[in-house]
Amino acid sequence: MAPTTDLSLEDIHALVLAVLQAHGADAANAAAVAETVTRAERDRALSHGLFRVPGYVKALKSGKVKGDARPELNATTPAVMRCDARNAFAPMAHKTCLPALIEAAQTFGLAGVSIQRCHHFAALWPEIETLSEAGLVGITCVSYLPWVAPHGGRAPIFGTNPFGFAWPRPGQDPIVIDMATASMAMGEVQIAAREGHAVPLGTGLSPEGELTTDAAEIAKGVLLPFGGHKGSALALMIELLAGPMVGEAFSYESKERDNGDGGPAQGGQFILAMSPDVFSGTEWAAQTERFVDRYGDIDGARLPGAKRHAARRDPGPRSVNTPLLEEIRALLP
Amino acid sequence: MAPTTDLSLEDIHALVLAVLQAHGADAANAAAVAETVTRAERDRALSHGLFRVPGYVKALKSGKVKGDARPELNATTPAVMRCDARNAFAPMAHKTCLPALIEAAQTFGLAGVSIQRCHHFAALWPEIETLSEAGLVGITCVSYLPWVAPHGGRAPIFGTNPFGFAWPRPGQDPIVIDMATASMAMGEVQIAAREGHAVPLGTGLSPEGELTTDAAEIAKGVLLPFGGHKGSALALMIELLAGPMVGEAFSYESKERDNGDGGPAQGGQFILAMSPDVFSGTEWAAQTERFVDRYGDIDGARLPGAKRHAARRDPGPRSVNTPLLEEIRALLP
Repeated sequence: MAPTTDLSLEDIHALVLAVLQAHGADAANAAAVAETVTRAERDRALSHGLFRVPGYVKALKSGKVKGDARPELNATTPAVMRCDARNAFAPMAHKTCLPALIEAAQTFGLAGVSIQRCHHFAALWPEIETLSEAGLVGITCVSYLPWVAPHGGRAPIFGTNPFGFAWPRPGQDPIVIDMATASMAMGEVQIAAREGHAVPLGTGLSPEGELTTDAAEIAKGVLLPFGGHKGSALALMIELLAGPMVGEAFSYESKERDNGDGGPAQGGQFILAMSPDVFSGTEWAAQTERFVDRYGDIDGARLPGAKRHAARRDPGPRSVNTPLLEEIRALLP
Repeated sequence: MAPTTDLSLEDIHALVLAVLQAHGADAANAAAVAETVTRAERDRALSHGLFRVPGYVKALKSGKVKGDARPELNATTPAVMRCDARNAFAPMAHKTCLPALIEAAQTFGLAGVSIQRCHHFAALWPEIETLSEAGLVGITCVSYLPWVAPHGGRAPIFGTNPFGFAWPRPGQDPIVIDMATASMAMGEVQIAAREGHAVPLGTGLSPEGELTTDAAEIAKGVLLPFGGHKGSALALMIELLAGPMVGEAFSYESKERDNGDGGPAQGGQFILAMSPDVFSGTEWAAQTERFVDRYGDIDGARLPGAKRHAARRDPGPRSVNTPLLEEIRALLP
């Protein structure tokens, strides 16, 4: 076990805020990212919390991301809007567009936003949980750098392409799906390679294009989608929705223009908000609770997001990986 | 190989029309279903073509489905509508709602319809390809009788819960995903059981809840979702979207009220139409073609729907399973 240091959520927030401001983010941009990082640590979703801070700083230092960006929101119709993030980190774009998206979805029953020129480096659940807190269903996806080969192929064209879905449960934690369509995150494969662990067959291919359980070989080769041809089809859907649908790049196009600084590449995000009140009326919430009760009676069945929501209830300090904390503190002036 | 009989697409259409009308469907309802069946045979999508006709007839004979239904469409907002199918087969509901859905999506950029009291017994691609022909992205799902256990569990709660997505390509065949979130259709498992074939580990569980490759054991037990916990999460999403989202039943509720006649159970359908022109502008179509070219350069990569679209180009007769054809002809007066 790596050494850890206990830190309160307030201290985590203050640290991220200070680090980002030290590297050129203004108060609004730094606060948006710090909130997203702190929500991840609160939920013990470590791969999207403090772990991302060095990457955020790299993107600020290279100038790829603008720490003083003011994203611009324009309504194309009463139910569709475009958000030019102007090279902000995604949480700043969400601060700009989610209130208007929520209002439009509550009025028209559904609404969508195309986010362009954005840099997404977090989980998807923060933005769709914001929608579910407003009683809305949220659907979102982003694409990323091309590390994943399509089913049947050996050359990468898809990003790890996560998909998010949140279903509101008034007075309860929402049901939240947030899943990569890759079999495994490349970061996890790299950690397995470093530690000498095998990964399940089907995770990826060696540089020679062969199935292998050797993580080091996959780290030099390509990942595969989860679930064979079906997962591959979903990865393709996400390429389309987070790319041309929203006026942004496919994963391969993102890579071609990225400066390789290690921070998040510029890309698009598709977000849809829908009101079950408008789609169906008032029965959906009680009907959902009856389903959840029945689902909960099945031994071994877990609701997506439940583990994170349980972690959230602990208001106490979080155990932060000490070397990571030292790396982040070294970024302070 | 089973014996086959060659039949033109016109003859297939006329046969289905006559059989349905002989069992109480009026001209409009029979024509809607006959068109859907004929499109499936045209695309050599045999599991959703003539194979379904005996089941359509069973539902008419039991009175569960109304052969003279006139589905009712009401706009809740300019972009959301509810379609009470009044116990029609799904193709009749689509005839009623798709033109209005297309118009709303072209005007507002996106639109949704909640279909209620409907009986869906076909593939999902016919309705979403109709959307893509209008330059729209289509997303849809239905749930079905509970045959699938959630990942980690042993008791069924999900239907085979298919998901459909179509991406328009002006002047070209659309990209069309139409996939069950179950690892395999129960019909395929039953055929494997009958023929003594093994199925892949992970397809389902025996009545004792154990993983097995024995199709006969799975046919007595439960199916599993494709792709482990991720596919299971998507099956759950579809339960929510095709159930409470649209004011209809979860799979387990559908089963509780179904009369077991072997025809399609009453359930809901969620359909979303979105305009990439409104979401992003005019570049998406050319950008998609550049992606498709690059994708096509990857050996072994296949575009979802391409096999069906290739089959479609053959205007000649289709080889129909002779015993099935005799069974259907016996349904004529």
